Amino acid sequence: MALIVAKFGGTSVADIERIERAAAKVVQEVERGHKVVVVVSAMSGVTNQLVEHCSAISKMHDLREYDVVVSSGEQATAGLMAMALQKAGVQARSWLGWQIPIRTSDMHGKARVTGVETEELHKRLDSGEVVVVPGFQGVTEAGRIATLGRGGSDTTAVALAAALEAERCDIYTDVDGVYTADPRVVEQAQKIPKVSYEEMIELASLGTKVLQIRSVEIAMNKEVPVQVLSSFEDEIGSDLPGTLVTREDDIMEKQTVSGVAYSRDDAKITVLDVPDKPGLAAKIFKPLAEAAINIDMIVQNVSSDTKTTDVTFTVSRNESARALEVIGNLEEFQEAGVLTADNVAKISVVGIGMVSYHGVASKMFETLAEKGINIQVISTSEIKISVLVDEEYTELAVRALHEAFGLEEQEAA
Amino acid sequence: MALIVAKFGGTSVADIERIERAAAKVVQEVERGHKVVVVVSAMSGVTNQLVEHCSAISKMHDLREYDVVVSSGEQATAGLMAMALQKAGVQARSWLGWQIPIRTSDMHGKARVTGVETEELHKRLDSGEVVVVPGFQGVTEAGRIATLGRGGSDTTAVALAAALEAERCDIYTDVDGVYTADPRVVEQAQKIPKVSYEEMIELASLGTKVLQIRSVEIAMNKEVPVQVLSSFEDEIGSDLPGTLVTREDDIMEKQTVSGVAYSRDDAKITVLDVPDKPGLAAKIFKPLAEAAINIDMIVQNVSSDTKTTDVTFTVSRNESARALEVIGNLEEFQEAGVLTADNVAKISVVGIGMVSYHGVASKMFETLAEKGINIQVISTSEIKISVLVDEEYTELAVRALHEAFGLEEQEAA
Repeated sequence: MALIVAKFGGTSVADIERIERAAAKVVQEVERGHKVVVVVSAMSGVTNQLVEHCSAISKMHDLREYDVVVSSGEQATAGLMAMALQKAGVQARSWLGWQIPIRTSDMHGKARVTGVETEELHKRLDSGEVVVVPGFQGVTEAGRIATLGRGGSDTTAVALAAALEAERCDIYTDVDGVYTADPRVVEQAQKIPKVSYEEMIELASLGTKVLQIRSVEIAMNKEVPVQVLSSFEDEIGSDLPGTLVTREDDIMEKQTVSGVAYSRDDAKITVLDVPDKPGLAAKIFKPLAEAAINIDMIVQNVSSDTKTTDVTFTVSRNESARALEVIGNLEEFQEAGVLTADNVAKISVVGIGMVSYHGVASKMFETLAEKGINIQVISTSEIKISVLVDEEYTELAVRALHEAFGLEEQEAA
Repeated sequence: MALIVAKFGGTSVADIERIERAAAKVVQEVERGHKVVVVVSAMSGVTNQLVEHCSAISKMHDLREYDVVVSSGEQATAGLMAMALQKAGVQARSWLGWQIPIRTSDMHGKARVTGVETEELHKRLDSGEVVVVPGFQGVTEAGRIATLGRGGSDTTAVALAAALEAERCDIYTDVDGVYTADPRVVEQAQKIPKVSYEEMIELASLGTKVLQIRSVEIAMNKEVPVQVLSSFEDEIGSDLPGTLVTREDDIMEKQTVSGVAYSRDDAKITVLDVPDKPGLAAKIFKPLAEAAINIDMIVQNVSSDTKTTDVTFTVSRNESARALEVIGNLEEFQEAGVLTADNVAKISVVGIGMVSYHGVASKMFETLAEKGINIQVISTSEIKISVLVDEEYTELAVRALHEAFGLEEQEAA
C-alpha cells in the first residue's frame, strides 16, 4: 500500500469521457490498496481561451488578475474529476490551492511553491478518500491566487508528492514515456525505461516537452520518482509502463548516451568585428541579462592576426527581436555589424554515462561530418553536447546520431 | 458621493468588448465621485456549459463539487473585469467569495448568504479602489465554495449593498427596466419608473424574470433600493434611467395595478370524485409537500347534492409527472380519476394600490369574460390576483387587461 500522486494533463481531461477514463485509472489504483492524490490540468483549450481573453483586454494586464482568470480552468476540472470518482464508487473531494493550502511566492504568473500543508490531506487519505487538486495554482501570503506558469500542473503534482512523501508521482499525458529521440523523426526510437533527473532536465531544456523543467528540478531535490506514462493505454501507473525519472543511483545500466534531442526554438545572433579586448563579452551580455533575455550557447572566435573578433550566441526565437534592439542601443557596438539567423536547429546528445566516457564528442562530430552537416556552434555540459546546425539538416542529424550511438538497441540492452 | 453596487449579468459581460463597455460605465460612476462595488456574472453561455459538464457525469452529482465547477465562471469574469477597469485607468482588484469572505449556509447549489465581512472592503473603497466581486458564490463555515442558485448574482449584489450600506444597487441587464407587461406581447407596455418590493416579488414569482426573487426579498428586508437598467444604453445608474425597486413609502403615486404578468410554467392537476369529508385536502397536499413539490393555486369545488368533490391545483410543469406519481401512490385516491393539463397559462395583475381598492377583481373577471376567456382557477393575495386560463388566450388576456387597467397611460400619470 503506497501513496501515489497521479497527474492528468489537458488532453487526458479534454472532455467528460476522458475525465471518466482518467477516474477509472485512479479507481484501479485505489482497488490495489493505494492512497491516491489526483492533480488535474484544465480541459484542453480552456487555458488558451482564458489567456486570450486576458490579452484581448491588455497585453500588459495585471498578473494578479491574470491568475484569478486562468486558475478557474483547473478549478472546474477538479470538481468534475471529484464527481467522476464518486460516480465510480470511491470517496473523493476537491481541494483548491487556497483550501489545502499550497503556499506560493507572490511572483504572479510564475510563482514558486513554498510550502504545502499536509496534515488534513493525510487524514483524508488515511480515511480512504481520494484527494483531487487543481494543478498550476496556490495561494500567496497575501491570500491571492497565484499560478505557477504554463505546464505548472506538473510542478503541483511533484510538490504534493514531495510534501506528502509519496512513493511516486505519475504524470499521465498523451505520450507513453520519454524516447531516445522524437518518434516522429526516428522510426526506431525506443522508450527509455529509466532516466536520471539530470538527463531529464537536459532533455526538457533541449526540446523534449514531456515534463516542465521546474517540476523535474523539484523532483530531483526531493528525490521523488516521477513516471511519465500515457493516459490512453490500459496500464495504470503501478504497472510501471512508462519512463521512470529517478536518481542516477537507481539506474543499473547507465547508457553513455540516453537520447538525442532537437529544438527549433533558437535564433543565432553574430556581432561582427568587435574590438578584441578584455571585458568585451560583459559589454554584450550584461545588458541582455538586464533585459531578462536568456542566452543559451555562446562562441567567440579566437582572433589571431586581426584586432577584432566575432561573437556568436543563441537566444529564444521569440526573443531575438528584443535582443537585437538591446544590442543596437549599445554605444560600443554602433560600428559593429550584426547578423541574425532563425534557420538553425540545436541538436543534442544527452547521457549520464558520458561523464566517464570520452569518445562521445568526437563520435558526434564525426557522424555529422560524414553526412556533410556543418557545425556552427558547440556547447557542452557534463552530460550533454549540443551543436547548432542548419535547420534543414535537423531530421538527418537526429537520425544519424541515433544510429551512431546504437540507441535503437537500447531496449534490449 | 455615494457607495453604489453595480451588477452586470451574463449578456452584459458576454465578451471582452462588453466587459469593457461595462467597465466604462463603472469608470463614469467613479468620475462622478462615487465608490463602486462591481458584481459580475459568468460570461453568457459559460455557466450552462459547466452545468452540462456536471450533468454529463451524473444527474445526481455531488452539489459540493458542482459548486466548485460552476463558480469558476464568475471567477474568470471578475479577474477580467478588474483588468478592464485598470486599463480604463481606475484602481481595481477582484475579491473572490472566500477572500472577502461572503459567508453562506452549507446548502450547496442554493446556499443563502449569512454574512459579509466589510471592514477591508470599506478600506479599499475609501482608498479609491473599485472592488470587483464574482456573483453567485460565497464560502461555507467548512471553507467550501457554495453557490446561491441560478440568478444568484443578483443576490450577491443586493447582499453586498445591504452589508456595505450602499445607497443603491444597480442591476445592469439586457432590458431597461420593469414593464407594465411583456413588451413582446403588449406593444403599449410602459416602463415602470418605481415599483415596490412587494410588487416586484409578485412580478418575479409570476413570470417576470428580471430579478431573482431571493434578491428582492433581501432588498426589502434590508431596505436597499434596487435599480433595474440596461447595460446597452448610454445612461449610467446614477442617471436613474431604469426601474427603481424601493419601499412603498417612497412611491408617491401608487398605481392600483402596476403590471400584468403571465407564466406558462404551470400544469393543472384535478383529482376527481374524491369523498367530500374533513381532512381531504391534507391527504393530498401533505404527501406532495413531503415530496418537496411546490403547490401554487388550489381550488376545491363546493359539493352540494353529491358526496364527492373535485380538487384542482397547479404545480410547476416540470414537476407535474412527479406530482402525479405521488398521488397515484396514495391509497385513498386509488379510485379517484386524475386529470392533468399543461395547456394553461397563469395571468396575474399586480399592484400595491389594490389593497385599498376593491374593484380590481371584478374588473379583471369582467374583462376576461368580455373576450370569452374562461377562468379555470383563481388565487389572490393582498397585491395580486392570478387566474388560470387556456394557454392559447395568453396574449389576448394580457393585452385586454393591460388596456382595461389603463396601463399604457402609466408613464404620464
